Amino acid sequence: MKYSNLFSKTSKNIPSDEVSKNAQLLIKAGYIDKTMAGVYAMLPLGLRTLNNIENIIRQKINEIGGQEILMNCLHPKSNWENTGRWDTVDVLFKLKSQTENEYALAPTHEEQISPIIKSFVNSYKDLPDYNALSQTFPLSVYQIQTKFRDELRSKAGLMRGREFRMKDLYDFHKNIDSQKAYFELITQKYMEIFEELGLGSRTYYVDASGGSFSDKFSREFQTICEAGEDEIIFSPSTRFAANVEVKDEALQKYGQVPIDLQTAKSVEVGNIFDLCDTWTKAFDITYIDENNQKQYPTMGCHGIGSTRCMGVIAEIYNDDDGLMWPESVAPFKYHLITNINSKDDDSWNQKIMKIAKKIYQGELEEFGAEQVFWDDRENTSLGQKFGDAQLMGMPYQLVLTKRSLESGGVELVNRKTAEKKIISIS
Amino acid sequence: MKYSNLFSKTSKNIPSDEVSKNAQLLIKAGYIDKTMAGVYAMLPLGLRTLNNIENIIRQKINEIGGQEILMNCLHPKSNWENTGRWDTVDVLFKLKSQTENEYALAPTHEEQISPIIKSFVNSYKDLPDYNALSQTFPLSVYQIQTKFRDELRSKAGLMRGREFRMKDLYDFHKNIDSQKAYFELITQKYMEIFEELGLGSRTYYVDASGGSFSDKFSREFQTICEAGEDEIIFSPSTRFAANVEVKDEALQKYGQVPIDLQTAKSVEVGNIFDLCDTWTKAFDITYIDENNQKQYPTMGCHGIGSTRCMGVIAEIYNDDDGLMWPESVAPFKYHLITNINSKDDDSWNQKIMKIAKKIYQGELEEFGAEQVFWDDRENTSLGQKFGDAQLMGMPYQLVLTKRSLESGGVELVNRKTAEKKIISIS
Repeated sequence: MKYSNLFSKTSKNIPSDEVSKNAQLLIKAGYIDKTMAGVYAMLPLGLRTLNNIENIIRQKINEIGGQEILMNCLHPKSNWENTGRWDTVDVLFKLKSQTENEYALAPTHEEQISPIIKSFVNSYKDLPDYNALSQTFPLSVYQIQTKFRDELRSKAGLMRGREFRMKDLYDFHKNIDSQKAYFELITQKYMEIFEELGLGSRTYYVDASGGSFSDKFSREFQTICEAGEDEIIFSPSTRFAANVEVKDEALQKYGQVPIDLQTAKSVEVGNIFDLCDTWTKAFDITYIDENNQKQYPTMGCHGIGSTRCMGVIAEIYNDDDGLMWPESVAPFKYHLITNINSKDDDSWNQKIMKIAKKIYQGELEEFGAEQVFWDDRENTSLGQKFGDAQLMGMPYQLVLTKRSLESGGVELVNRKTAEKKIISIS
Repeated sequence: MKYSNLFSKTSKNIPSDEVSKNAQLLIKAGYIDKTMAGVYAMLPLGLRTLNNIENIIRQKINEIGGQEILMNCLHPKSNWENTGRWDTVDVLFKLKSQTENEYALAPTHEEQISPIIKSFVNSYKDLPDYNALSQTFPLSVYQIQTKFRDELRSKAGLMRGREFRMKDLYDFHKNIDSQKAYFELITQKYMEIFEELGLGSRTYYVDASGGSFSDKFSREFQTICEAGEDEIIFSPSTRFAANVEVKDEALQKYGQVPIDLQTAKSVEVGNIFDLCDTWTKAFDITYIDENNQKQYPTMGCHGIGSTRCMGVIAEIYNDDDGLMWPESVAPFKYHLITNINSKDDDSWNQKIMKIAKKIYQGELEEFGAEQVFWDDRENTSLGQKFGDAQLMGMPYQLVLTKRSLESGGVELVNRKTAEKKIISIS
């Protein structure tokens, strides 16, 4: 992608009501546009970043047998009445059609996946147990999709949206040991996902207070982040963590106080739930077991907010100059900066353009294809280009000027460490 | 993908209120689930099909300089009041938040792209003219996203959804010749898209009656389809076509009556519009021209319904046995059927499984990787498997049985022509 072709530009103007650091940075850098509080559009660079995040999640969930589907935003009122949540979920957006039908705008999808599963589950054979050895996975279905929450306040940028994107996975079991083992596998995969997103070392999981596994057990994944709305105690050395509200109880259960125990603000980036048989009973999902008896499966529900993760990464990976994307999620790995100086001999300029095109088109093996964002703007100063590269936050900058060529090639600058080295171009 | 792992199955039960052929077929074949009238979930095979369709569209639109973004479902009321459409669009879903804000659930995105473009367009330099020779493209932005229409009736399955997916592209020009030339380029790309989707020969474009290019000109892409709600006259030999309502006027303008002129029902699969400066004026999008004068750009808007296309393809590509996907959109190219017969010598069964695994894992070059759906179900009759393969509609069936091996290999059956041949496995 060339900057001269990109319609979205860096900007000094941010909406006056935008108080969150992640949204301010992403707007300034031209990644997102604010439609209104809690609702943001993804501009080309933002969408590339979001796609990278969602593809990391998708790949990891596919590895544990997740089957991808795409459910709907509009849900019939009756599904939500079925579970009593039409009246109890305070963030539920409701709307009415011109034919006087009432719909919920889904904030989560238990109320849709349940009737879907009901049509396909009949026998215990439809509910395989998770088996790590044979790599047999349970009935596990997910989507990556747009969701809605009628939040009272939405001031945390991408970290708390009224419209946001989420991966939500639902699993169904006839056997609680299978569910429990799969729950642990999901925990492990989630940690792998957060690791790959660059949030691994800062992310801890905490078990919800009270409740055993067969009593609506849940686990939160909390990323240490100053702008977070939650607060946890945590120990980097032992990976112990707990919600501040239940710290005494959690420490007592843990049996010791880790020497490096700390307290910090955090953001919930994921949450996984044992839903027991609440939904399967509400929707009358049954199977016939080996003894010809009708049974209700148990169910789990497991979310990761992909737009929220993007917000958290932006919130954490930045400095005074701008964004600093981890390589795994950056829209481009390299930010190529060229400078054509009319005062220079034209042969220099021709040489610069020739090498730049090769790098951009992926002809130089070192830099790969489709991995280079090229700031090819004419009539823009080198200083402005450096500033934009810092703001936009690709992991590496490639500076290609008369000076870099005189030094032996193209200058590679690490956005995060500011380390520089010259790479020779043969 | 193995059938034994797939949670969604073929089914004989379709909702009693489902009257459309495309939805009936897609539900029976396990591609979609009906949530309510006009709202369908994509099951694993359905999502793969939809992704193929959307990727064909995406690639073609990228080829003409489209920059992909992702806008929102929730729009502030004020944006729609700005253009007067809050009150005039009868299919507009409206909702209110608990903070008493009113939102539209977007059926189209002129009301969101306009303020986005306003923040990035200032000068004539931001609005390059389309130039075919230099492959310079105008400011052209698109998304592939979920949309909503509060339809009074929604009985055509995926062909008329209350919630549906669409590619919508918006282009902006300072020069009407640029806009006109790009409009023709989009027409050409749309025809390439429909060709690749398998709808090419049946799809005609018709210009809307009245209006010149600078007066809200629009062009519809109509696919001949019995279940269509529109009606066109068309000539396969000349590709002339017109809406029935304006046939006399159109024929007069065309200057002759093509010898093979026919009338047929059709479905609008795409629609492209010249919006003149209506939206740019409503949102006060201006640029400073070469003479330092403030000007309003003109704008175009161009849609293709991706879920609608899926419905139309299902509606057209089928026979009494079920679906018959074109190769370009089929979720898998091959449907592998194996049969393990306990009466057979076990060495036959072992041989079948060994070859099947090789085909499934993409180890045999002929069949590629990730292109094989394997009906590996045990305790399912060969007859049932054949029936399901016909219903699910992959372009080729691979039948691997003792009998096929005795005949020299695996039997390849063309779903559409029923042609069979034996492919030897070395």
